[in-house]
Amino acid sequence: MTTAEYTVSGMTCAHCVASVTEEVREVAGVTAVTVDLASGALTVTSDEPLSDADVRSAVEEAGYRLS
Amino acid sequence: MTTAEYTVSGMTCAHCVASVTEEVREVAGVTAVTVDLASGALTVTSDEPLSDADVRSAVEEAGYRLS
Repeated sequence: MTTAEYTVSGMTCAHCVASVTEEVREVAGVTAVTVDLASGALTVTSDEPLSDADVRSAVEEAGYRLS
Repeated sequence: MTTAEYTVSGMTCAHCVASVTEEVREVAGVTAVTVDLASGALTVTSDEPLSDADVRSAVEEAGYRLS
């Protein structure tokens, strides 16, 4: 199991958090996602190390950016 | 047909606008709803005049307040 930390910019409310969580959860291999609105912290847990590009794509799919 | 104007506070993003629009659209008699994020303006069109309390309840159901 591995955990990676990212920072998401542009989230303003709980709906934004839900959107990011939902998209990142769909990345192959992801087992858990937590997002903190105030700090933008995105914590992704997966069985094997993930591609940062896959996480970035998921965040952008939700309409936000990694900072 | 009648149109009423309200101001909603607390909306921060397009998801918030969608939530308010969806809840107010479900109020009996409502035929059209527009919400402007920047100003908070909520415009509700209905066949007959609506109860302000019904509109207020719908906005609060979405998680926001009339100001």
